[in-house]
Amino acid sequence: MRAICILLCFFMFLLVSSAHPGKKKQYKPCKELVLYFHDIIYNGKNAANATSAIVAAPEGANLTILASQFHFGNIVVFDDPITLDNNLHSPPVGRAQGMYIYDTKNTFTAWLGFSFVLNSTDHHGSINFIGADPIMVKTRDISVVGGTGDFFMHRGIATIATGAFEGEVYFRLRVDIKFYECW
Amino acid sequence: MRAICILLCFFMFLLVSSAHPGKKKQYKPCKELVLYFHDIIYNGKNAANATSAIVAAPEGANLTILASQFHFGNIVVFDDPITLDNNLHSPPVGRAQGMYIYDTKNTFTAWLGFSFVLNSTDHHGSINFIGADPIMVKTRDISVVGGTGDFFMHRGIATIATGAFEGEVYFRLRVDIKFYECW
Amino acid sequence: MRAICILLCFFMFLLVSSAHPGKKKQYKPCKELVLYFHDIIYNGKNAANATSAIVAAPEGANLTILASQFHFGNIVVFDDPITLDNNLHSPPVGRAQGMYIYDTKNTFTAWLGFSFVLNSTDHHGSINFIGADPIMVKTRDISVVGGTGDFFMHRGIATIATGAFEGEVYFRLRVDIKFYECW
Repeated sequence: MRAICILLCFFMFLLVSSAHPGKKKQYKPCKELVLYFHDIIYNGKNAANATSAIVAAPEGANLTILASQFHFGNIVVFDDPITLDNNLHSPPVGRAQGMYIYDTKNTFTAWLGFSFVLNSTDHHGSINFIGADPIMVKTRDISVVGGTGDFFMHRGIATIATGAFEGEVYFRLRVDIKFYECW
Repeated sequence: MRAICILLCFFMFLLVSSAHPGKKKQYKPCKELVLYFHDIIYNGKNAANATSAIVAAPEGANLTILASQFHFGNIVVFDDPITLDNNLHSPPVGRAQGMYIYDTKNTFTAWLGFSFVLNSTDHHGSINFIGADPIMVKTRDISVVGGTGDFFMHRGIATIATGAFEGEVYFRLRVDIKFYECW
Repeated sequence: MRAICILLCFFMFLLVSSAHPGKKKQYKPCKELVLYFHDIIYNGKNAANATSAIVAAPEGANLTILASQFHFGNIVVFDDPITLDNNLHSPPVGRAQGMYIYDTKNTFTAWLGFSFVLNSTDHHGSINFIGADPIMVKTRDISVVGGTGDFFMHRGIATIATGAFEGEVYFRLRVDIKFYECW
């Protein structure tokens, strides 16, 4: 009888533990996605190709050239294609939509608020991100604060890395999304 | 004795299960609210009634007319009345405050970052939302990422639907908030 | 034997309870931080000291004076020093980066979207906030929707209070961050 109770106790412990897959010290993502998105900033001449536009700027700046002082004060609105690899011309699996804000005067940093809207054979739903982006750091982490559809109620961390940067018009970000709360 | 242990086992299972009301496949909200909010965009002539204003726009656009190209690049700041039914003139139970960003050049989509600040006999507290809004879709889901007061630490999904749309000045949104994490 | 089972039952109950430290009615934070940040708005003359700038404004307003009507429609981008006490000149332990939006025409309220980027001997990581700020209320709560580094996946509530306010150029906020989900 004691053996049964000990077994039961152990079984209960497993139940309780497994109910919190991510709440231990060595966290393993319950889901992971690696995606790329591509941003082409409107500069007054590339209206056909541009996927984003400067819509706010500090005093003295304009909306076709990123502001001086590390673009401090620029808000850029974007609707960028998301691809499965690092090729801008690969078939998009969704759109990255939202804004970034250049928010430091003495280095490049941004604040990000955006969503991935995925619509492919593999994924249907949206993923919502916010966070600080210290652009000059090789990889930086932002928060995945929620999701819908296939990503219903998900939370996690997205590690972003700048994969390419051409002048002040094009950049590509690699986004490694690790979900730690899946539903 | 074995019967007691089995009963105990079953009881434990119930305890563990009920501790995660939303963590199963068939999710039931722990709380639900249906509310409406009403947005009247400032157009240069309706200062007395307007509840929102265009505050950023792409190059060449202005702040009293929504931009061409599906309003791409407009940021609108709002402080809109929230009502319990779809009537703009019903007594407000709170304010919807924040911003929306038109973020696509070839269709109407927006990115939303806003809060419901509720102050009525029924509810006191705030609910915070972010997400992508593909406006032309009948119902679309955004994330409820947190709350305060009566909605302390809550998370969930808000399903929004455009209930009315008059020219480019007035719209009404129905917001069906389903909380899946209540505290 | 029955005694063992009752004991086991009680033990299980403890396990289940302790697995949800914050899910009961009396919530205790699993971590708490009190920090201050300092905002100096650019007014056209203080370029050297300013830590923030007006980057968007409603029709008729400009970018060096906060708009009339309770600054309704102004978006301010900031990169503010964070200190451990209320002294602007204390050594900063990080930066508060993001934006605030004045969003009411008949009182002072703001919508906040920002991050704390901490980099000190005590803390390394970021904390992400959004929420409504009814500025005239003594203390107000916003959501901590995520974190990275030392604050990996954390959620909580931040209670903010205006500690100082000088004209329309400087203010200091006290931020009492209570985490209720720690990992």
